Amino acid sequence: MTRWKATCAYDGTDLFGWQSQPRGNTVQDYLEERLQDIFSKVVRIHGSGRTDTGVHAKGQVFHFDAVWTHKPSDLLNALRTPLPSSIHIINLKKVSEDFHARFSATKKRYVYNIYEGFALPTESRYSWSSGTRKLDVNSMKEAASYLVGTHDFSAFAAIPRGANGVDPIRELIRLDITKRGSHIRIITEGTGYLYKMVRSIAGALIDVGLGKLTPQDIKQILKSRRRTMKVITAPAKGLFLEKVFY
Amino acid sequence: MTRWKATCAYDGTDLFGWQSQPRGNTVQDYLEERLQDIFSKVVRIHGSGRTDTGVHAKGQVFHFDAVWTHKPSDLLNALRTPLPSSIHIINLKKVSEDFHARFSATKKRYVYNIYEGFALPTESRYSWSSGTRKLDVNSMKEAASYLVGTHDFSAFAAIPRGANGVDPIRELIRLDITKRGSHIRIITEGTGYLYKMVRSIAGALIDVGLGKLTPQDIKQILKSRRRTMKVITAPAKGLFLEKVFY
Repeated sequence: MTRWKATCAYDGTDLFGWQSQPRGNTVQDYLEERLQDIFSKVVRIHGSGRTDTGVHAKGQVFHFDAVWTHKPSDLLNALRTPLPSSIHIINLKKVSEDFHARFSATKKRYVYNIYEGFALPTESRYSWSSGTRKLDVNSMKEAASYLVGTHDFSAFAAIPRGANGVDPIRELIRLDITKRGSHIRIITEGTGYLYKMVRSIAGALIDVGLGKLTPQDIKQILKSRRRTMKVITAPAKGLFLEKVFY
Repeated sequence: MTRWKATCAYDGTDLFGWQSQPRGNTVQDYLEERLQDIFSKVVRIHGSGRTDTGVHAKGQVFHFDAVWTHKPSDLLNALRTPLPSSIHIINLKKVSEDFHARFSATKKRYVYNIYEGFALPTESRYSWSSGTRKLDVNSMKEAASYLVGTHDFSAFAAIPRGANGVDPIRELIRLDITKRGSHIRIITEGTGYLYKMVRSIAGALIDVGLGKLTPQDIKQILKSRRRTMKVITAPAKGLFLEKVFY
């Protein structure tokens, strides 16, 4: 038995997210169907974490165990070929038995794409567009600086504080705002995230950019440790799981 | 009655091209349905030209005639709002009565996108991917140089020479190949194009890049004025109507 580590990318627009579900059409479902075709038995894959419906990935990582006596590149090709065009396996390699896509990950990078103006359809598929409104990037940067570090991020998560015994303390190693032309990117790296945390932070930073919230409001909201209507979850289509670090 | 000129962009992936057809789902159908809603009568639009199923546009132009007593920006908003997300109206303005989207056009720019390698799903939607194969850009440039100018382009069109009385002589003002990282672009500007001409030229230039044809072959094929199996039509998804000049 060999443990395999694979990196994949997907256009989440028409998919129901990462995790397998009864109605299918998830990345996990397509990959496991493919592995079942190849190995003539059920092969479970383990992702670095879930992504929601509509969220994209440039570097999602998963692992699985399987006996393969041919070349690894043949397994990669067998996996690749009949997948939907919205899913692509970037690479595949043998790893040691103790590698785990989720538990071995040291941090994850997410990018949230904002388009200042009216994005063309080919862009708006992968970003949130501000329309006629401008964003104040310096205010966004100041607000972001208050979120970097280790905090109780309950105010920026979709689950009630303490629900299901989830520890609401998370560490954001990086939260940068970049601007190039009409493209504004929110780049975050963290050791772990609460449910919908990146999109909640993105939604709050967008509102700072639009002047609906101040950087000081972000400080207060974080401190409150309570999710309120002040924080809007930004649309899934702007979010990319960019890279998982090991 | 006012003549209106509009510029629009679309993601052609899920559309059946520009021109209206009985089964609908074309750009023209969506725009005319919208105009009919607004004006409570049939308003025909006239595009700068057709684009095929799957071809994208960043700057398609069309015109129509309508009486509108409110602000032009209100008409733009009314047109924009309920369109499918794959279609976006970039701008709208009043023009003189003698403006015609097709006949007033002086040239058109098309871009064909090639990805050297395996494109991620978010890229492969808008480009042709070479997979494991590399492209020789210098050979492509040399081949392109033989196509610039005024020629009988019958060998690079989908219609038999002389069919329907179409004059096969066209002028290519520009045919450039650019490379930035893994992105290779074929950029062409011409006063007019034969049916599937840009995709046929792209297909032939790709085959030059892959070493299946030589630049001299392109010279010979052009001279033959006969479309043969040597010239493959590149997939629609890589093609963008970039700009119409007036």
